[in-house]
Amino acid sequence: MLSAADNELLTRTNADTPMGQYFRRFWQPVALLDEIDEPDGPPVRVDILGEQLVLFRDSEGQIGLLERACPHRGADLFFGRNEECGLRCVYHGWKFDVQGHPRDLPNVPDGAGLHDSVRAKAYPTREYGGFLWAWMGPEEADVPPLPQLEFGRVGAAHRYVTKQLMECNWAQVMEGDLDTAHFSFLHMPAPSVPANTNPNAPADERRLRWIRNDPIPRFTVQEHEVGFVIGGERRAEDGQRYWRMTQYMLPSHGTGPSAMPGETYFGFTIVPVTDEACWMFTYAWNPEREIGPEERDKLEAGHGVIAALDENYRPLRNRSNDFGIDRDDQKHRTYTGVKGLAEQDAMIQQSQGFIADRTRENLTSTDAAIVRFRRRVIDAARALEAGDAPDAPWYADLYCTRPGSWFAADGTPLEDVMQERFGDRLGRIPVG
Amino acid sequence: MLSAADNELLTRTNADTPMGQYFRRFWQPVALLDEIDEPDGPPVRVDILGEQLVLFRDSEGQIGLLERACPHRGADLFFGRNEECGLRCVYHGWKFDVQGHPRDLPNVPDGAGLHDSVRAKAYPTREYGGFLWAWMGPEEADVPPLPQLEFGRVGAAHRYVTKQLMECNWAQVMEGDLDTAHFSFLHMPAPSVPANTNPNAPADERRLRWIRNDPIPRFTVQEHEVGFVIGGERRAEDGQRYWRMTQYMLPSHGTGPSAMPGETYFGFTIVPVTDEACWMFTYAWNPEREIGPEERDKLEAGHGVIAALDENYRPLRNRSNDFGIDRDDQKHRTYTGVKGLAEQDAMIQQSQGFIADRTRENLTSTDAAIVRFRRRVIDAARALEAGDAPDAPWYADLYCTRPGSWFAADGTPLEDVMQERFGDRLGRIPVG
Amino acid sequence: MLSAADNELLTRTNADTPMGQYFRRFWQPVALLDEIDEPDGPPVRVDILGEQLVLFRDSEGQIGLLERACPHRGADLFFGRNEECGLRCVYHGWKFDVQGHPRDLPNVPDGAGLHDSVRAKAYPTREYGGFLWAWMGPEEADVPPLPQLEFGRVGAAHRYVTKQLMECNWAQVMEGDLDTAHFSFLHMPAPSVPANTNPNAPADERRLRWIRNDPIPRFTVQEHEVGFVIGGERRAEDGQRYWRMTQYMLPSHGTGPSAMPGETYFGFTIVPVTDEACWMFTYAWNPEREIGPEERDKLEAGHGVIAALDENYRPLRNRSNDFGIDRDDQKHRTYTGVKGLAEQDAMIQQSQGFIADRTRENLTSTDAAIVRFRRRVIDAARALEAGDAPDAPWYADLYCTRPGSWFAADGTPLEDVMQERFGDRLGRIPVG
Repeated sequence: MLSAADNELLTRTNADTPMGQYFRRFWQPVALLDEIDEPDGPPVRVDILGEQLVLFRDSEGQIGLLERACPHRGADLFFGRNEECGLRCVYHGWKFDVQGHPRDLPNVPDGAGLHDSVRAKAYPTREYGGFLWAWMGPEEADVPPLPQLEFGRVGAAHRYVTKQLMECNWAQVMEGDLDTAHFSFLHMPAPSVPANTNPNAPADERRLRWIRNDPIPRFTVQEHEVGFVIGGERRAEDGQRYWRMTQYMLPSHGTGPSAMPGETYFGFTIVPVTDEACWMFTYAWNPEREIGPEERDKLEAGHGVIAALDENYRPLRNRSNDFGIDRDDQKHRTYTGVKGLAEQDAMIQQSQGFIADRTRENLTSTDAAIVRFRRRVIDAARALEAGDAPDAPWYADLYCTRPGSWFAADGTPLEDVMQERFGDRLGRIPVG
Repeated sequence: MLSAADNELLTRTNADTPMGQYFRRFWQPVALLDEIDEPDGPPVRVDILGEQLVLFRDSEGQIGLLERACPHRGADLFFGRNEECGLRCVYHGWKFDVQGHPRDLPNVPDGAGLHDSVRAKAYPTREYGGFLWAWMGPEEADVPPLPQLEFGRVGAAHRYVTKQLMECNWAQVMEGDLDTAHFSFLHMPAPSVPANTNPNAPADERRLRWIRNDPIPRFTVQEHEVGFVIGGERRAEDGQRYWRMTQYMLPSHGTGPSAMPGETYFGFTIVPVTDEACWMFTYAWNPEREIGPEERDKLEAGHGVIAALDENYRPLRNRSNDFGIDRDDQKHRTYTGVKGLAEQDAMIQQSQGFIADRTRENLTSTDAAIVRFRRRVIDAARALEAGDAPDAPWYADLYCTRPGSWFAADGTPLEDVMQERFGDRLGRIPVG
Repeated sequence: MLSAADNELLTRTNADTPMGQYFRRFWQPVALLDEIDEPDGPPVRVDILGEQLVLFRDSEGQIGLLERACPHRGADLFFGRNEECGLRCVYHGWKFDVQGHPRDLPNVPDGAGLHDSVRAKAYPTREYGGFLWAWMGPEEADVPPLPQLEFGRVGAAHRYVTKQLMECNWAQVMEGDLDTAHFSFLHMPAPSVPANTNPNAPADERRLRWIRNDPIPRFTVQEHEVGFVIGGERRAEDGQRYWRMTQYMLPSHGTGPSAMPGETYFGFTIVPVTDEACWMFTYAWNPEREIGPEERDKLEAGHGVIAALDENYRPLRNRSNDFGIDRDDQKHRTYTGVKGLAEQDAMIQQSQGFIADRTRENLTSTDAAIVRFRRRVIDAARALEAGDAPDAPWYADLYCTRPGSWFAADGTPLEDVMQERFGDRLGRIPVG
């Protein structure tokens, strides 16, 4: 449970808010590279953290991310001409390069002074992992390196990336991921569907049984420089424990906890659009093998944290159609009647409201990671407000981690489980 | 004319308002029983008095009306599973019975204390007259008996019930009913359509003539414990008077005044959704005979206070299509060019705005009942605010009344007319 | 650049604002006469300056413009009956003539006093130039004569008039017109399209060359009693200058500056609907010849300041479809990829936001007329607020002016250019 003031602090991310300033100290994905693949192609609207921006790739392939309002009289640069290394406003031809410097102010007489003083607000960008990233921090601050999330370090053939619109505040999407206890319910078959009790059943069916049969996983949270690992431990057969480990990395990176060795990993990064909507930039990656055409088709149709999407990256099953809930399906076949793991998550997270009211909660032990998450980001946003800039963005290499599942004997502590599964007690992959 | 402050008091009904608290001391219809006829069927969203609620019928046929936000972390119980005597949140399986008591908190360890402390906010409900009713008053207050409106006391075959959405504040719908002077205009044929002047014409045509020919009915208002009777008297032939009597019962029950003995009665109960929309729960009943298939078909197609509806109980002719106004029809055939008495009422009431501005009115003698209504509910809401809970809900039997038409010699006072027409000076029917 | 306070003052025009009061001292076009051509025809909704009004033509052809809320209880007179020299509310039959005087209050007893005191708020109207005009100033003020804009003084066969909805504040539409520097960009072909350099090319193609080749026109602004003339001077061949002269007349009349002698003139008058939308009442007129069927068809399809419209006078290419921008067309054929001069203007003006933020501009020399416009109307609105009513509405004859293009030798001052082109240094046409 949060106070109303803390809930405001957690959820508001415009430029004039503490959490908005905190987010702006981290690199944010802002578009798929596929959206701006063509030099001098059409500009793209980007709405991020309450700001209206425009994205363009110039003649030389460089990418600019500018405030959408032209500095002259505020016309929208989205309607601009992307030509010869600059984006040109069509009202009076003011043209800006990717750094926001004026390249041409054709209706301004020489000596008017504007050539030196005018600048379009521009944010630094980087391409990484199939996404375009931006850093929207204050101009006087140093720009940190890109977070070395593993999906961006593997070859393009080893990953699948996209984005999806969530019609609610960013924080409840983050919380939905950190709380892996909900797997025992939200993503299960209907209770009347029997679990396969054969000890030699395929892994997926055995996992289902363990998850369903132990709805109160014991959580261990291991904090570190850029976030924390959450281990959720459930009873399996033969005195073993089935562990699911999720990586949370500041401010809004999350992962799916299911992958056994060799399986494809899932993760995502949340970026607020407004306080009542956000993008999930989603990714699947497999460091050990390429993601083949068949798996790629499956991901494109919606799989894991990736929803089935329309051409504007809005999930087909969304708020407007009650996420396609099928009550007969809910009664007899699945727990929710909603098709798709990502859609099930979207349904429940958005059902908490556009901005969840955290003043009336009743938290329990399986919400441990949620509590930790809130404390971590609220404290950090307050610290920044008091003048203490975050260290996390500078530990870029520590973002290269893996999540996943593992078995261990009863009593094995999380760090040993992690060591066994990933060769590192925090699941970190060395960055060469 | 009201002051701006009184208009606010009259029209605002959220939980933190005096009128909202006043409404909450009375039973409110919240759904048709047809909407929740199936045990363990799909939950139903109910938006009433600014609150978001969910309705479900459990395995044993009991009905629960709960706050929609799950007490755990606010997920929407509408998406929940209705199973084995409880509604279960699909996020973490919290399950509540119709009283809001937790039946299962599967992710909560024993001894965590939540099993005793957690409760879903639940409102008492009753089935009556084909509707589900709820009492949303404070927990510490005593729950009064159900108002014994006559349509609910006759056999199901003797009534027809439904509901319709009104896209405006509740009070202007109420006022439209209390002011029966508007029958001389709104519901008439075009002035160019001649009235049948034959003294032996059928009753309906004679009524039309009297109503049209006397546009200034004299109103008598007779107050009583749970509201008032309004008698509107018009000149008929042979020194007779044609009386139309409407029942107003606190806080928002109204009736149609047309019925002659043997004819079907019409009534409705208004329940605010938000301050800018409300439900009319409408009913037709005939204590003397069953409502046969033909009359039932006629009611279903829209008749009397019942509009032609779509599958979501929204009138087909509504704000978005200017109520289907046909200007040629208005010029030559009907007063409004809008088809249907209910739609004519809806058109004019909604045309006053989402919340009518009562600070700029010019009332006249035929608005007497409106003035009385406002004074009655505003005074009562203020009294409750000052600590004086209303008596009216406790006089449940006095809600069993009839409205209708009658003839009387000039000079007959209302109470004698009522006595002649209904055998009681207030139109009350004894409750056995 | 304006202060936030001045931007508010400039853009807000409801009745309780200084600019709203200023507008109300001038006649405003409120409808096309075509919309109310039929005596006793259907009433028409008019939303102007934040007020909800209803327009009707009575049995004798007189036009009434009344507040839409009936004085009785606020029912909407749009649903009223237009009959026998009055508009009748269908709730209780209250009927008002074009002056707002009650002609019938059929449910009001004689002697109730209302017959003398009740009045529907009515605004004086005049027919002029194919439009209906209204004067919405205070009742105690004198009503000025109609502004004698030339399009209204020529025969109906010499003009074409319509209106179009703009989804933004009125002032940015006005500013877009006053700044003719944007012709060198917004309305040009794509830069890759060569200009015709043949000195004997048709006038249109030569104009294009001069406009494109001199993107920093020198502006001269000549203020006068009812506005100002703006002359924009560009280099042409042979030491000549190409001048484009625009008329701005208080508070919101503008013109197209292209017409050479004999060509059809274009103009418009802006009327705020709300602060985030406005009507442009547009007109083309030719005092020297009739506008024939072919030119009329061209105008109806969208030409000059007139956009291609749907049946509700909303441009077909509008905000909701990004003004039909075609990026391929923008790259290879036109500067904007948007079809139609009016649509290009609408696109760029609306792209500044629903209400442009003028606190962050960087103005340059070609914005001279915009600066003058702002100072003129802001000062005048402030003066009115201080008790100093505007003179301009009383100089009705001075509104009869012409805009257009001309050539002159380098160094010729604006007033001489005007004298040469129009026979008057301000482009005024004597009113007989």
